[in-house]
Amino acid sequence: MTLEELALDLVRTPSVTGSEEEIADKIERLIRSLKSVKDCLRLSNTIVARVSSPGAPYTIALCGHLDTVPGDEVGERAFVEGGRLVGTGSSDMKGGVAIMLKLLEFPPERFRFNTLFIFYESEEGPYAQNGLHQLFDGGAIKSEDIDLAFFLEPTDCVLHVGCMGIVNASVRFHGVRAHSARPWHGENAIHKAGEALVRLSRLKIPPVNVGGLEFQESMSATMAQGGIAPNIVPDLFEININYRFAPSKSIDEAKRYVEDFFKGEGEVVFGNLQPSGSIVNSNPVLKIFRETVSLPELPKHAYTDVGLFAEHGIEGVNLGPGHTSQAHKKNEYLELEDLRRCYRIYEDFLLN
Amino acid sequence: MTLEELALDLVRTPSVTGSEEEIADKIERLIRSLKSVKDCLRLSNTIVARVSSPGAPYTIALCGHLDTVPGDEVGERAFVEGGRLVGTGSSDMKGGVAIMLKLLEFPPERFRFNTLFIFYESEEGPYAQNGLHQLFDGGAIKSEDIDLAFFLEPTDCVLHVGCMGIVNASVRFHGVRAHSARPWHGENAIHKAGEALVRLSRLKIPPVNVGGLEFQESMSATMAQGGIAPNIVPDLFEININYRFAPSKSIDEAKRYVEDFFKGEGEVVFGNLQPSGSIVNSNPVLKIFRETVSLPELPKHAYTDVGLFAEHGIEGVNLGPGHTSQAHKKNEYLELEDLRRCYRIYEDFLLN
Repeated sequence: MTLEELALDLVRTPSVTGSEEEIADKIERLIRSLKSVKDCLRLSNTIVARVSSPGAPYTIALCGHLDTVPGDEVGERAFVEGGRLVGTGSSDMKGGVAIMLKLLEFPPERFRFNTLFIFYESEEGPYAQNGLHQLFDGGAIKSEDIDLAFFLEPTDCVLHVGCMGIVNASVRFHGVRAHSARPWHGENAIHKAGEALVRLSRLKIPPVNVGGLEFQESMSATMAQGGIAPNIVPDLFEININYRFAPSKSIDEAKRYVEDFFKGEGEVVFGNLQPSGSIVNSNPVLKIFRETVSLPELPKHAYTDVGLFAEHGIEGVNLGPGHTSQAHKKNEYLELEDLRRCYRIYEDFLLN
Repeated sequence: MTLEELALDLVRTPSVTGSEEEIADKIERLIRSLKSVKDCLRLSNTIVARVSSPGAPYTIALCGHLDTVPGDEVGERAFVEGGRLVGTGSSDMKGGVAIMLKLLEFPPERFRFNTLFIFYESEEGPYAQNGLHQLFDGGAIKSEDIDLAFFLEPTDCVLHVGCMGIVNASVRFHGVRAHSARPWHGENAIHKAGEALVRLSRLKIPPVNVGGLEFQESMSATMAQGGIAPNIVPDLFEININYRFAPSKSIDEAKRYVEDFFKGEGEVVFGNLQPSGSIVNSNPVLKIFRETVSLPELPKHAYTDVGLFAEHGIEGVNLGPGHTSQAHKKNEYLELEDLRRCYRIYEDFLLN
């Protein structure tokens, strides 16, 4: 299969978080059919293929998650038209996964580094269920083994360094239940959220400069739920707050920011928390990358598992063919020209 | 069983809307065991007992719904303490139903009017599923047969005339979906509702005077739902709006009020609509009632099926032992003193 055919095939294979078995089976079969790969490990729906290059000075990892967010899955109805691959996961990040699989076809002696190819599950779900944890827990990968990790997350073919951390919190507005015919006997929990939602809609957090790059923090209400019947004034309204914070902040500082924002209005109950990933300008492999490939560099605004790796002391960056503006969008697409371009960047960098 | 025991027994019999079979069975058994009742009809979980009084000039109906709203059902754990019956449905409106059953024990010749006792299902659910409709549809009751209906809904033992109409509408705030790491690529549908919720929380509609009584309209967001994942800026946020309008307004006028309120902000999709019930000062049976029993009169703020009867040309009022402030509340209770007082009012009025 060509790179484009492979990407289309992956996008046509549904893999919403928690349902990655089919796509993992497909990828494992593909890898095991390659004569060039001797070392392939599967844990649940996470697969690690290792290419050992004789005499290589450094070990790098290429990482791609297999899952997509739920909602409007295009699945088998994915198609190519006008130079675009259209379908859920095309940009985030099956284009990147296709590049990893194509690179694996080269014989080990062509590789400049020892290279781990990590295809993993459950990146889009809760942090605790991320498929990478099991690799560290079980000793399948060790922090000291990897000099730099590349995540092929959507970056529009430029290098994204650092990564934003995430605080998820349930903000609960409390009221007093009453019959809706006499709302003055109660307190409406949904109405109480109005002021906070107005403040959120007007919120402009100033950019944060870290390592010469500007990170734009943001805070969004992403889910909301309240009320039990059409004729009852609700006593509880709950919104999920998703706060993305810059690499200069700790999780504790980020939590404090959220608490302060809703102080006196809503009860803040923290949920899924993901650390930010720091800037890694001094990394020796990154130095080689910058010498080999001249690419613009930008701050990474999405959370990526550069943050998870940072928790394990592994440095990482993001570089992938997908479009940041397409991730998690309806009718998500990927420009095939960018897919090919990103593939060539990795080819230039990785292969002798 | 005494009146109080009967009320406790009914409150201990769970009957959330849609699950009224057990309580209807119990009531049917009770009625069929009474020698005084010759004419008893059951349709689904709705029961009509007819007492024909020789030579009576008018026919009235006493009406009580059997269902309760969902959430925090106390059911079998209902109890009596300090003169209060505590349990879901005690005020709304099993106390009233107990009064109806006790009155049925009197022999027909004691009754001043021909009297229909209507015990019905699904009052708290959508209007279209209200148990009364089937009685009109199947011809079990005819508009011209009933001169005045009394609904034993909670009124704190005073007469509530008229009834508020209801407009339920789903107000949909539309946005553009995006990854929550870059919310500026989308438009947050939940944030968009902020201004409207603030206006709702500050809304004070002036009272409406109808037939010498002041009706207090109100509009509440009673349910809310939006978003599909913690890391996606939502493109849809939906709130259920419950607007209670005075008897002077038509349903069309009420719908226009809701549309105007959210104009330019949310798409209004109408749901369950319930007509208001007019003031019936000239009714001949009401005249007799006022001569027999001297009671304060107030506007009815809840919707009751006085509105449904009005659609069929039957005039109605509300008078029941329950407390308006207790309807649909957690730990709902009923003062037993009020239960006995309301029973005596009906006894004085109905019996020779």
